[in-house]
Amino acid sequence: MLLDQRQLPVREVERACQRWEEVADAIRTLAVRGAPAIGVAAAFGVALAARQSRAATYEDLRSDVDVALKGLAETRPTAVNLFWALARMRRVALGQPDAPVERVRARLLAEARAILEEDVAANRSMGEHGASLVPDRARILTHCNAGALATAGYGTALGVVRAAHERGKVALVWVGETRPVMQGSRLTAWECMREGIPHRLIADVAAGSVMARGEVDLVVTGADRIAANGDTANKIGTYSLAVLARHHGVPFYVAAPLSTIDPSIATGAEIPIEERDGGEVRRVGGQQTAPDGSPVYNPAFDVTPASLITAIVTERGIFRPPYRFS
Amino acid sequence: MLLDQRQLPVREVERACQRWEEVADAIRTLAVRGAPAIGVAAAFGVALAARQSRAATYEDLRSDVDVALKGLAETRPTAVNLFWALARMRRVALGQPDAPVERVRARLLAEARAILEEDVAANRSMGEHGASLVPDRARILTHCNAGALATAGYGTALGVVRAAHERGKVALVWVGETRPVMQGSRLTAWECMREGIPHRLIADVAAGSVMARGEVDLVVTGADRIAANGDTANKIGTYSLAVLARHHGVPFYVAAPLSTIDPSIATGAEIPIEERDGGEVRRVGGQQTAPDGSPVYNPAFDVTPASLITAIVTERGIFRPPYRFS
Repeated sequence: MLLDQRQLPVREVERACQRWEEVADAIRTLAVRGAPAIGVAAAFGVALAARQSRAATYEDLRSDVDVALKGLAETRPTAVNLFWALARMRRVALGQPDAPVERVRARLLAEARAILEEDVAANRSMGEHGASLVPDRARILTHCNAGALATAGYGTALGVVRAAHERGKVALVWVGETRPVMQGSRLTAWECMREGIPHRLIADVAAGSVMARGEVDLVVTGADRIAANGDTANKIGTYSLAVLARHHGVPFYVAAPLSTIDPSIATGAEIPIEERDGGEVRRVGGQQTAPDGSPVYNPAFDVTPASLITAIVTERGIFRPPYRFS
Repeated sequence: MLLDQRQLPVREVERACQRWEEVADAIRTLAVRGAPAIGVAAAFGVALAARQSRAATYEDLRSDVDVALKGLAETRPTAVNLFWALARMRRVALGQPDAPVERVRARLLAEARAILEEDVAANRSMGEHGASLVPDRARILTHCNAGALATAGYGTALGVVRAAHERGKVALVWVGETRPVMQGSRLTAWECMREGIPHRLIADVAAGSVMARGEVDLVVTGADRIAANGDTANKIGTYSLAVLARHHGVPFYVAAPLSTIDPSIATGAEIPIEERDGGEVRRVGGQQTAPDGSPVYNPAFDVTPASLITAIVTERGIFRPPYRFS
């Protein structure tokens, strides 16, 4: 069961996925999004593939699961949690060639459940660590949605905010609306409303002005992939916020589980950046906002160099530069 | 006759104003916007007030015109061209206490026409000067709409782009969509399409990423008010672009007529910044993008300090720091 995030905040619609292809479609169309949530959803997609397979032999089941592993891997290129979760599922599938197919199916489902539970636990732990970085009466700026909706629950960047709020430290959360898909206004504002966290929505373009007024004590965002040197891919606009934070002497934090770190790549230059359809920029909902023929450049992510990141908060603690993940 | 800019790019609707109150409403609701265009429209509003007045004596006409001067001045607070144009119209009205009322009416209309014609001439001149700053094969980033629609014709920032394009110097214009009112996607992209200027639309949050890729040679924006020291109020988001430009070593230019300079104030800190309704951020067109109850901070402008401005292009030439306007 997925909450269809494209319909928030107007409607809360749950979407039941019976087949891995439906999960792949949900990821591709942003019904489920957020790096950790994509990883968890993909893991359940593999478990569904095993369930929907009519294979009676291990070989046939592996063949069906491989199709799903491949199909799910092709949904989105940037968030590494997707590939990390699929690799875990593949190891489980590969690891039991002598087991009866029913046991393989059960183990794949158990692994998906473990990935989900570990993600929630990691978020809680990140919240604990991250809250120690938050001063009293903090005004925190965040971007996109790295909350419960982007994870299996609680959140990464918004988990830090939530933990700090539980400790009474949060005066205000500035929520950048996050064009073009509006995850900030649609999702983060919605989560803040539900949690009773004081917040104020801004157009992304107002972030610099708010910092110049001295009304931001720290910035915290999630991440979609972190290179070995700490360079971080995250939602388009994160890099601009990091530059602005540096200009104003505001600390800039990234909160992400270790599953977001990709030690196989040295720097952010190697992270593939997804480009999405220009229609996301030419329209909002059904509303046309640009001439139909206007060419659009619509990267979904950008890379913030490690040099602009004050610290990276993970479930194992807080890392500071120089970052050397392995 | 005003082209109703709120309906672009979907519809081209002209709006006939017979009364100054209709002009004031058009300014307030952004049917006409852009600092120079607001000034020109307000001037014609005063001429309309004189025409619609049934006064037979100078005293009565002055009284009616004064009501319009006051009402038009209250429409929007930031762009100084409004107050500059109204001051010119007031001087004309004040200057002829012995003239027959018909002559006063005619002179007010003539003054409004002069303001319009001077604005077009100033734009052309700004374009000449500004084009000299543009290198060959330039990739130019602009924000909001400082084009023909924002002026009496041709444009300020987009006038510079247009003049450079006429000289064959423009490889690409990056058009920031300019949330929340989308003047970039709705108006600047529309103007670029009509003029055949190569352009690419981006969400505002992508500007940093495009600069980091080395794909921006200069930034040019318009202005709503320039203080004596060169601090410049312009559309929200301009300040962030100036910080990003500095970070990436990209020149940041402002193009504005002398009527945008307000030497009566020393620094940008004294410029009143209009805050607009939160509904502009919570919705796009009829489409809800945020929870209904979410609090919003929606400043329409920000102030870019003179220290971040490489040069200011006016109809009298190019000014460079330190700026000392008087």
